[in-house]
Amino acid sequence: MITDGTAVTREDVAAAARRIAGLVLRTPVLEVSPGLFMKLELLQHSGSFKVRGAFNRILSAGTLPDSGVIAASGGNHGLAVAYAARTLGVRAEIFVPEVTSPVKVAGLAALGAHVTQTGAIYAEAAEAAAKRAAETGALSVHAYDQPEVIAGQGTTGLEIMEQTGGVDTVLVAVGGGGFAAGITLATGDAGGGGPRIVAVEPELIPTLNAALRAGEPVQVGVSGVGADALGASRIGGLAFGVLSAPRVRSVLVPDEAIVAARRVLWERHRLVAEHAGAAAYAALLSGAYRPEDGERVAVVVCGSNTDPAGL
Amino acid sequence: MITDGTAVTREDVAAAARRIAGLVLRTPVLEVSPGLFMKLELLQHSGSFKVRGAFNRILSAGTLPDSGVIAASGGNHGLAVAYAARTLGVRAEIFVPEVTSPVKVAGLAALGAHVTQTGAIYAEAAEAAAKRAAETGALSVHAYDQPEVIAGQGTTGLEIMEQTGGVDTVLVAVGGGGFAAGITLATGDAGGGGPRIVAVEPELIPTLNAALRAGEPVQVGVSGVGADALGASRIGGLAFGVLSAPRVRSVLVPDEAIVAARRVLWERHRLVAEHAGAAAYAALLSGAYRPEDGERVAVVVCGSNTDPAGL
Repeated sequence: MITDGTAVTREDVAAAARRIAGLVLRTPVLEVSPGLFMKLELLQHSGSFKVRGAFNRILSAGTLPDSGVIAASGGNHGLAVAYAARTLGVRAEIFVPEVTSPVKVAGLAALGAHVTQTGAIYAEAAEAAAKRAAETGALSVHAYDQPEVIAGQGTTGLEIMEQTGGVDTVLVAVGGGGFAAGITLATGDAGGGGPRIVAVEPELIPTLNAALRAGEPVQVGVSGVGADALGASRIGGLAFGVLSAPRVRSVLVPDEAIVAARRVLWERHRLVAEHAGAAAYAALLSGAYRPEDGERVAVVVCGSNTDPAGL
Repeated sequence: MITDGTAVTREDVAAAARRIAGLVLRTPVLEVSPGLFMKLELLQHSGSFKVRGAFNRILSAGTLPDSGVIAASGGNHGLAVAYAARTLGVRAEIFVPEVTSPVKVAGLAALGAHVTQTGAIYAEAAEAAAKRAAETGALSVHAYDQPEVIAGQGTTGLEIMEQTGGVDTVLVAVGGGGFAAGITLATGDAGGGGPRIVAVEPELIPTLNAALRAGEPVQVGVSGVGADALGASRIGGLAFGVLSAPRVRSVLVPDEAIVAARRVLWERHRLVAEHAGAAAYAALLSGAYRPEDGERVAVVVCGSNTDPAGL
């Protein structure tokens, strides 16, 4: 178990994999052309990788209070926590801002979560959730900046290495950075080596890119097509520590490239991804990241909580 | 190479797998719950398994005439032949009936096929294609009733056994029967054993079910949600021979079960299947086929040529 709350290791990821085995899907890998692998994490329970971290955080806590678990998010994280809690028979409270669509609120309720709509923006809902957690003692499940969450998301990286037989490069989308950090840890070796991690962000939400330039996490604007799922306005502190490694390369993609990649995912590969879930592939399609000849590349397609009618 | 045109063997399927390797995707298998596997053939090039047979038929022919290949189908088979021909740099003529939607005609044209719209129904377009083939000498690629086509489709069955480590049962949809026959051959052993094959048809298009009752292929009506992809009005003669084996069980599902299964595939599994592609899963969800405790089951989800807006 992670105890100091400040460092996550490859061993934590391996422990998370044992802890959540059978509760999450080992999502398939599709080799779309020789040496180009897609990790189909969009087929995961609740429609995104977020259940991995949710399960690991909840199961790492030992005995839970009667008040269960609590989280703030109207998006993939909220759905994942609600799904994990229902699976484990635990009470879940999810705080969402008032702007959250009725469809998403209904989705959370359908998973049995107690939904509270409050605050104009996410940060206000998160503040209300924190206050409520202090009152009830419920276990707070953060969307990205908790060691157990990062370790859980990282299990995706272990699977990628096993299922592909190893790659030179992994492309992954970054919001708060928990997913990319987990994958970086999972794929690394003891000497600091491992595949190159291409951390892809929309130009309009450059949390990691701006932090790397500034040398520390900084506030950025949040807008564009990825905002509903990559909506963190600052990279997580734990994630930043991991993603500052030399083998991580920060890459930005314009919204048009994300929209185009989402369309290609449907038309060519028959996968329905949300915009954020298509961001990593957008870096490849648009040429923002250009592999060398013979480079073995894995692209994580990480979310499908979208209306397919938009395709 | 198959020479007598009347029998197909497991060795023909193995030869087809070698012939088409690298041209078709080895589509992934997803274990959705312990012992329940989905073969994601809906992610195949051109959106269905049909490219396997198309490639195998074309590549088995040796030198092709300048007139290339010819097929009749406004649906998955037409798309598959057009895709295979484009990949191989071969001319393709596709005959479709006048009722074929402009979207499908445009899709065929986008793949570079020469499209001829003629005849009120499929049978008339097929007749015109046969006449044209006799004039030009083009290689005819049948939608199901050719040995090379059956052997090609069967490669799906080889992959299922390899990717799952073996199953007790395979559920597969039946139209003209080429796909189910190929999978039956691929999964069988020399002694007539092998997994149970559950051959699933819509109640409204019972080509195999009616043939098994009659003891020979008979004409059936074609209607309902599966008609665009499972639209053969009579089981293929070659397929019937294979599917008469004792380990094949014929099961019918009502259209409502197919519609419900297609919806569950999206909502629970994030897969966009066409109705015909959801038919095999419908047999499981509706209870038309009930596995025993511990039975290892593979369900083939075989087509995605559909408008996701309908979900």
